[in-house]
Amino acid sequence: LQNLIEIFAQFLEPKQIIAEQSEIAQYLREWRDRYFGQTPIMLLPNTTQEVQKIIQTANEYGFKITTQGGNTGLVGGQIPQGEVLVCLKNMNQIIETRPEDDCMIVEAGAILENVQNIAKENGRYFPLSLASQGSATIGGLVSTNAGGVHVRKYGMMRALIMGLEVVLPNGEIYQELSPLRKDNTGYDLKQFFIGAEGTLGIITKACLKLVAQPKHIQVCMVGFTDEQAMIKALHFIEANCNFLSAFEMINQQALEFGLKNLIGVKNPLDKIYPYLGLLEFSSNAQNPDAIIEQILGDLLEDNIIYDAVISNSISQVNQFWNLRENMSAAQKPEGRAAKHDISIPISKIPQFMNNAELAAQEIVNGARIAAFGHISDGNIHYDVARPQNMEDDDFQEFVPIINNKIHDIVCALGGSISAEHGIGIGRAKEFQAREPITHLNLMKTIKQSFDKNNILNPRIYFN
Amino acid sequence: LQNLIEIFAQFLEPKQIIAEQSEIAQYLREWRDRYFGQTPIMLLPNTTQEVQKIIQTANEYGFKITTQGGNTGLVGGQIPQGEVLVCLKNMNQIIETRPEDDCMIVEAGAILENVQNIAKENGRYFPLSLASQGSATIGGLVSTNAGGVHVRKYGMMRALIMGLEVVLPNGEIYQELSPLRKDNTGYDLKQFFIGAEGTLGIITKACLKLVAQPKHIQVCMVGFTDEQAMIKALHFIEANCNFLSAFEMINQQALEFGLKNLIGVKNPLDKIYPYLGLLEFSSNAQNPDAIIEQILGDLLEDNIIYDAVISNSISQVNQFWNLRENMSAAQKPEGRAAKHDISIPISKIPQFMNNAELAAQEIVNGARIAAFGHISDGNIHYDVARPQNMEDDDFQEFVPIINNKIHDIVCALGGSISAEHGIGIGRAKEFQAREPITHLNLMKTIKQSFDKNNILNPRIYFN
Repeated sequence: LQNLIEIFAQFLEPKQIIAEQSEIAQYLREWRDRYFGQTPIMLLPNTTQEVQKIIQTANEYGFKITTQGGNTGLVGGQIPQGEVLVCLKNMNQIIETRPEDDCMIVEAGAILENVQNIAKENGRYFPLSLASQGSATIGGLVSTNAGGVHVRKYGMMRALIMGLEVVLPNGEIYQELSPLRKDNTGYDLKQFFIGAEGTLGIITKACLKLVAQPKHIQVCMVGFTDEQAMIKALHFIEANCNFLSAFEMINQQALEFGLKNLIGVKNPLDKIYPYLGLLEFSSNAQNPDAIIEQILGDLLEDNIIYDAVISNSISQVNQFWNLRENMSAAQKPEGRAAKHDISIPISKIPQFMNNAELAAQEIVNGARIAAFGHISDGNIHYDVARPQNMEDDDFQEFVPIINNKIHDIVCALGGSISAEHGIGIGRAKEFQAREPITHLNLMKTIKQSFDKNNILNPRIYFN
Repeated sequence: LQNLIEIFAQFLEPKQIIAEQSEIAQYLREWRDRYFGQTPIMLLPNTTQEVQKIIQTANEYGFKITTQGGNTGLVGGQIPQGEVLVCLKNMNQIIETRPEDDCMIVEAGAILENVQNIAKENGRYFPLSLASQGSATIGGLVSTNAGGVHVRKYGMMRALIMGLEVVLPNGEIYQELSPLRKDNTGYDLKQFFIGAEGTLGIITKACLKLVAQPKHIQVCMVGFTDEQAMIKALHFIEANCNFLSAFEMINQQALEFGLKNLIGVKNPLDKIYPYLGLLEFSSNAQNPDAIIEQILGDLLEDNIIYDAVISNSISQVNQFWNLRENMSAAQKPEGRAAKHDISIPISKIPQFMNNAELAAQEIVNGARIAAFGHISDGNIHYDVARPQNMEDDDFQEFVPIINNKIHDIVCALGGSISAEHGIGIGRAKEFQAREPITHLNLMKTIKQSFDKNNILNPRIYFN
């Protein structure tokens, strides 16, 4: 340890080298207490050149590195298991905002919410939006190809990246930060680092794609009786307007957890339906209201939706979104749950919901299914909570069995066992067991060719 | 040669093995007669398994392969230089159209226009659109990450790919065709093959992303006096509606070539302006006309545009588009030109247009600048035509000098020397000279790790 400190002291200030375990502790703990780690030392670089020197040193002395941003990842990819922890939180500058080019160049440690706000001040909009946006950093969001609530309209983080600066595992720097919408000169190298969970390089800067700031944002809460109706509504709305920006879903059980456990929350509709839908419309034209009302009217008339409430103020927009965003918190008091971040082709949602519920009930009779999420992406957070009268510890033994069964159903329907959270520590074993060997081998080949000494996040994927 | 025929005859029908040079000739010639090639033999596989066997055979016997789709590429990447030619045009089936999942699964040889039409029959829209869509194949469009006129709204081909099937250089098959909008299980391998110009695998199938079919498509032709006005108009329109689907530009010289050399074409406006803008609006809501008229009215009032004509029929929509799409044909009678497919950050367009014209005139006094293209992507087809009274042969010696100078200006402004056409044969030398060595080395590493025997399109990039 003393050796490491002396090596880093050659190019870092003392305050950038943290060896005191009590100071490091908070960085070794995932916020929901699902993942814990250890590290001999934490480094806080301020510049790309310092990151470069850290990687060069790692190659020279043979130590491994785990990179961390805002420590909001949900699969533990940011938690070191003995590696040196490199935290980019000090590299948080917004370097340049260029409204004419609809872009913003930022350091990797910049906080998402900060980016959103500065875009707005410049008459632009950065559409990535997710519950942890007050802490999540751009570098982490790029490395995990973050998703969230606006993916159907604006795409995953991948679609919002115009350029990257990355320190490669060999210590060289890849830099392509110019805001080009078209560039077909050779392989598009930035694609390789997006979603690679820090295994192929340390992202130090990004050029983000902005869009026009929506003029009118409106949220509607609507009631559905089944999944097929949600799919019909999605396509009807998209056929009749160009500004549906989110379509989220909360099933009855998840809503009931929210009504019971969240303070100040009430059902936005008069009745409780099998599914509550949240529709967000983001229009740039004047007066989208007539179009929205026409659409909802048609959907009501055709019995595709039952009841609908349109937000009448910004505070109501926030209130509707809070209900949706607090679904995890709403579940917590109900005890242990087997959680899943899955995606399936949209047409398979009815079949998935049916098969998954039958399977879960067969494993644990009385299990409570709280399902919510990004229905228009086919991305459902499917949580099987323990029966009301069962102890957490008794339920725990069923969790891996449920996980496995739900993932079997997902895979049989052509789905993904990690839609937006990534692999990290949490899904590594299942990933390795389920991914075709041809794909795994190709990924290994790529990892080895980028990172010959296996320095960066070595435990992810290929343990 | 006889050996090769015997080898292939073990798994292909005689009609799938073409060794007669007179039959192959048309596949060895780029349609504008800019690139020519040679091959001992052309193969026409009908299935993924046949492609797999061809690659396995290549590994065994040590021959190289160039893959071809519709032979519409503009940089010669599809033209073999001695390699075996594998043409996928027989693998042209639309395998499945799934409106609920907004996707279509097709073979690599499927023609773009066919895909567009079948999407439409299913109430959906495949937004990729470019001049060669009647011949270009999906495999080629994926391999070159094709662009075209709808990129600002819908993205390049990369953004429209939900899944791929690829035969890898080692003969294994990568397949991930499920229409998932979110899937973060390991590296997103399909990204590696998109835009790789056939160097990392042979794409055999694709799952394409469809969107809702626009209800109203309207095209407006407007006059601009300078580049800055076009940039202002772009942002004003996007701030005030959600359905701008294309913003193309034709400069005065390019328009004059069109008026002179295209049959039945007339200026859509009363006067000739320094720039003619083509605006396409694709709205799904009823009655977008009021919004469009309001926007154009505001732009006229602020002297951002001068004059505007709105299409009043489908035939006028087509007429306006034809003018834009026939710009290459319009130039042909004017003799030789130094052509460039460049992109730059949008804010740099005025500076580029100014610097490039000065530089071109300095090299050849009287050169005629025909510039047109995808202004809202910063992608300009910048063609320097010979002076009217100069012979083609006399002009020819200046072409490489002009190319080099224009590309210097592009690079100094953070631009790309190949925005949408790729590298192929045509841009290989310039690409290798201008790309940073770190990037080139990384690309070489990737190529070597995928294609250990250097079988696929070996001459591209790394000669």
